[in-house]
Amino acid sequence: MDADARRSLARLIRRSRIAALGTLRRGAPNVSMVACLPSADFATFWLRLSRLAWHTQDLSVDTRVSLSLCEADDGRADPQTLARVTLRGEATEIRGDDAAGESLRRGWLERFPASAVTFELADFSFWRVAPRDARFVAGLGRTYNVSAAELARAAQEGA
Amino acid sequence: MDADARRSLARLIRRSRIAALGTLRRGAPNVSMVACLPSADFATFWLRLSRLAWHTQDLSVDTRVSLSLCEADDGRADPQTLARVTLRGEATEIRGDDAAGESLRRGWLERFPASAVTFELADFSFWRVAPRDARFVAGLGRTYNVSAAELARAAQEGA
Repeated sequence: MDADARRSLARLIRRSRIAALGTLRRGAPNVSMVACLPSADFATFWLRLSRLAWHTQDLSVDTRVSLSLCEADDGRADPQTLARVTLRGEATEIRGDDAAGESLRRGWLERFPASAVTFELADFSFWRVAPRDARFVAGLGRTYNVSAAELARAAQEGA
Repeated sequence: MDADARRSLARLIRRSRIAALGTLRRGAPNVSMVACLPSADFATFWLRLSRLAWHTQDLSVDTRVSLSLCEADDGRADPQTLARVTLRGEATEIRGDDAAGESLRRGWLERFPASAVTFELADFSFWRVAPRDARFVAGLGRTYNVSAAELARAAQEGA
C-alpha cells in the first residue's frame, strides 16, 4: 500500500460515522448498521450497543465480527468506484461507562450528540473492535490486504 | 407493519444501489460492499459477482447470506435515524448470462452502465438472493420483523 492509498484509507475511516457490522446469528451471517468511532491510531473501532439488539445477542455467543465502512453513495455513474474497507477482528464489551473513560465518552457525544440518552440507560455499553486485519478497496481494481501495522501507519500518516 | 412503514421500506429498497453483503469466511463473518438490484416484487435481490472476489469464494462454501441496505449518511445530527433493512436468505448462482435472461441484463446495465465490461469477462455471473425474512429499522426505535409475504406486499403497495 503506497502513501496515497494510506491517505485515502485514513480519510475513509475518519469520515465514516456508520458501519455495517457482521455477526453470526445461529451460525448464519447477520449484517446490521451501527454507529462507529475509530481511535486516533485505528487500533480500536468503538461501537455503542444496546443489549436488546440482535447483534449484541449475537456477540454474547461469538465475538468474531466484520466491520465494513463504505463511502456514501453519491449517485455517481459507477458505485463500484466507492472506497470501502472491511475490518475483521474480535469485539469486547466494556462493562460500565466509567470503565470506558471520560475521553471516549466525550468523543462519542461529540460525534453523536443524540446518543446522550443512551448514557442514562442501563442496556447500552461500549464495545471495542480490535481489527486483526483489513481489506481496503480504494476503487475499482485497487484492492489492498492491510495488516494491523499498516492500519496504524495509515492512521499516523493521515493524521 | 403499517402502510406507512411498507412505503418507507419499498422506497429504501428501490433506491439502494449498494448493499453490505454478509458471508461466512472460514466460519467467521465477512462483510463487503456489492452492487444490488431488487426484482419488482422484492422476491429476488440480484448481485453480479466476480469469481475472484472473496465473497464469491465464501458463497462457494456456504450460500447463507445477509444483505443490509442503508440510507446514505447525509450528515444529519443522528445517524441512528437512517432507515435500513437487513435481509436474510440464500444466494444461488445463475450460470451463464444467457440463463439470466435479457430483461435482467438490461435492468442491470440501466442501473450500472459501467458494468458493461463485466459481460465480456468470464469470471462474472449473476447471483440471486431470495430473502427468507427481513428486519426493517425505519428509524430510531421503529423496528419491524418482516416476512417474505410482507416484503411482497410492500413491493406491491409501494410500486
